[in-house]
Amino acid sequence: MVVCSLVRMSRRSAVNLLSLGNRAVVGALYGSPLRTLHTSVCDPSSKGAFKPERVAVVTKTTRYEFEQQRYRYAGLSSEDLKQLLAMKGSSYSGLLERHNIHTHNVEHIVRSLRSEGIDVRVVKRGEYDEEVVRWADTIISAGGDGTMLLVASKVLSNDKPVVGVNTDPERSEGHLCLPVRYTRAFPEALQKLCRGEFRWLWRQRIRLHLEGTGINPTLLDLHEQQLSLEQHCQAHRITTMDGQPETGSLHQSVPKPSLLPVRSLNEIFIGESLSSRASYYEISVDDGPWEKQKSSGLSICTGTGSKAWSYNINKLTEQTVEEVLKIGKSLTALEIPLNREFIDKVTDEYNESLVFAPDDRRLFYSIREPIVNRVFSNSRQRGFASRVCVRSRCWDACMVVDGGTSFEFNDGAIATISMSEEDQLRTVVLEN
Amino acid sequence: MVVCSLVRMSRRSAVNLLSLGNRAVVGALYGSPLRTLHTSVCDPSSKGAFKPERVAVVTKTTRYEFEQQRYRYAGLSSEDLKQLLAMKGSSYSGLLERHNIHTHNVEHIVRSLRSEGIDVRVVKRGEYDEEVVRWADTIISAGGDGTMLLVASKVLSNDKPVVGVNTDPERSEGHLCLPVRYTRAFPEALQKLCRGEFRWLWRQRIRLHLEGTGINPTLLDLHEQQLSLEQHCQAHRITTMDGQPETGSLHQSVPKPSLLPVRSLNEIFIGESLSSRASYYEISVDDGPWEKQKSSGLSICTGTGSKAWSYNINKLTEQTVEEVLKIGKSLTALEIPLNREFIDKVTDEYNESLVFAPDDRRLFYSIREPIVNRVFSNSRQRGFASRVCVRSRCWDACMVVDGGTSFEFNDGAIATISMSEEDQLRTVVLEN
Repeated sequence: MVVCSLVRMSRRSAVNLLSLGNRAVVGALYGSPLRTLHTSVCDPSSKGAFKPERVAVVTKTTRYEFEQQRYRYAGLSSEDLKQLLAMKGSSYSGLLERHNIHTHNVEHIVRSLRSEGIDVRVVKRGEYDEEVVRWADTIISAGGDGTMLLVASKVLSNDKPVVGVNTDPERSEGHLCLPVRYTRAFPEALQKLCRGEFRWLWRQRIRLHLEGTGINPTLLDLHEQQLSLEQHCQAHRITTMDGQPETGSLHQSVPKPSLLPVRSLNEIFIGESLSSRASYYEISVDDGPWEKQKSSGLSICTGTGSKAWSYNINKLTEQTVEEVLKIGKSLTALEIPLNREFIDKVTDEYNESLVFAPDDRRLFYSIREPIVNRVFSNSRQRGFASRVCVRSRCWDACMVVDGGTSFEFNDGAIATISMSEEDQLRTVVLEN
Repeated sequence: MVVCSLVRMSRRSAVNLLSLGNRAVVGALYGSPLRTLHTSVCDPSSKGAFKPERVAVVTKTTRYEFEQQRYRYAGLSSEDLKQLLAMKGSSYSGLLERHNIHTHNVEHIVRSLRSEGIDVRVVKRGEYDEEVVRWADTIISAGGDGTMLLVASKVLSNDKPVVGVNTDPERSEGHLCLPVRYTRAFPEALQKLCRGEFRWLWRQRIRLHLEGTGINPTLLDLHEQQLSLEQHCQAHRITTMDGQPETGSLHQSVPKPSLLPVRSLNEIFIGESLSSRASYYEISVDDGPWEKQKSSGLSICTGTGSKAWSYNINKLTEQTVEEVLKIGKSLTALEIPLNREFIDKVTDEYNESLVFAPDDRRLFYSIREPIVNRVFSNSRQRGFASRVCVRSRCWDACMVVDGGTSFEFNDGAIATISMSEEDQLRTVVLEN
């Protein structure tokens, strides 16, 4: 166990300690001696202390800001905006209120950090890039889970800590964020981090290789929620074809699998872009035989993502479980209970079995709405794996990473989805 | 029971008989006396005879034709096309083979009709329009289920018969088509129709009213499979905005519900166009209380459609049923069987319960992947109803009719989904 003393230690040395791979050793990062240590109850020399020097705070775009930008672009005044929202059944004052709550919470975080002598850069999500990641030794996501996914998407190393703070707990679930009480009591969180009263959680992420025809290795960032479907596709076309007509698949033939510059924290979703069109593809699990499938898409998730989209694809409602048990009862004449309490219990246990640990090294694949008929088969609808290969037979499909970044994935393209220890994301777990 | 004799009867009178609403009475349509009755074993005077005069045969576009058009547009030769397909793992000769099978079957149908003295117009799906519907007294769909849906989409009356023939039984399911044996033995089908050895099936369809802001009552035809996602959205923009920037929702405010000129044979699907984005909306079933929901979309289907997309959304796999029964067993210590046979039986019974009769007057709604958390609730995931109202809270969503026609359905729009006897589609059922 290495104890880092108050002796001035270069940040690089501290980072090297962290990178030694010994998870029980947590280095400390110290404020530069040139900076006054403001009143702090933190003893940076304590075991396991975590005290960042340079923190980037990445903030979400609120719905209010979005509507303002959108309608200002259309030349509307605030009064027009109010009326328009009212017509749509939304409330201008409601949006403004959520916006103010978020802004207030961001200010609280920033003040708390600065009063610890930490150098803070506040960055809007649109301005967040690799330069910000390089500058910071820690990144705080100030928003909801979506903002956390965006923040994580640009952190490709496994040693730069990312911390999520839920700036609107009444509206956001914040699965990836600190417990909600720290939103208004952020100094407490900082103190716990400083005193080592937390643990590191290395969340395993997914990596992607692409090869074959019908691909466009240029990624498209959907994270900006403003990006409409039209712009999504248009951008794909612009980056592939430079004015050429609909021949995207002619453009690229990549003989060797190329590793994409993204890591998925939640899941990869593969499927036709248009939600009403069926997806055709072939799948091979852990180098098993290829199977032709037709479905409404394929999800491959991490332990972190097992509580997100994959969970919603696979979970059962009480209504469904009740009907299965009813049929089982009618076919066996056994006294299978059908009361509310029992049904809820079975449903909860089933749904809980879908969730697994964020640091688990396995990925979990699910076929969404498999179409099984004379032409298409299905051995298993879902399961764990180390590696999944998918060959597209789609018209106009995408591979979507964490609901935010997408890659064209059309007829002939082959994706290999796997995990590697290097791909972990370093996050913190604070007790509530 | 009315017997229609060989006396020359105007087509209009015959049609009027049909429209009398007495399902036990089936009028007959006679060849014009000016046309020679070619050798036919059919006695048009027999009870329940169905002998059309003017038949439009609407044909699908084969994958081969599609690829030809697509690459000819890009300036490729046949040789280039072959190579390109081979690179993608497809087979040029395979596509050509399917194309030839389809074409051969279409020729068989047309010859069979003409040898009965029937006036036939062969119409490609791209040329099929209201004029063709008006001209014909019967329409034959020559393709798969998709072609049948297209054909039905332009037949808004409930008395014009539509018959589906599956022109590639090895590749298409053909749920909406005649039994596959009639594909190569079409004269037999014609004879049975002529002899009244069939029954009429009036398939109940869905009608749609739209009101509120954020709508574009101009429908967009997605039926042409060539239509990519980009074109889909671009077309929506062109028809709404004439070059205006992204302000689609400013464009139309429709105070009174307007009845849309479409009838859905399978289902209406409502949801975000981008398959990875969650849909937000409010729903009211049979004039019940409004409920805010978040899910990956909402399907509302007919009896016909209960075997289509809705079935795939709701059906369970053996894997899922086995896990539910396992949990039930572990919580009760009852001897619930877990052998393959029993699990298959429960699964089949569950899945069969999702299917209901095409002439049933009820619609069936299903919420796909409901997201239930602190913010959003869910009383029932699915059920029967007479009427469903949905208010959009979506960014960039559509209402998709039979997977082919779509309407913008964004924040503020309200759709009322219901059924009426007038909306039935007249089809035939031939015994196998």
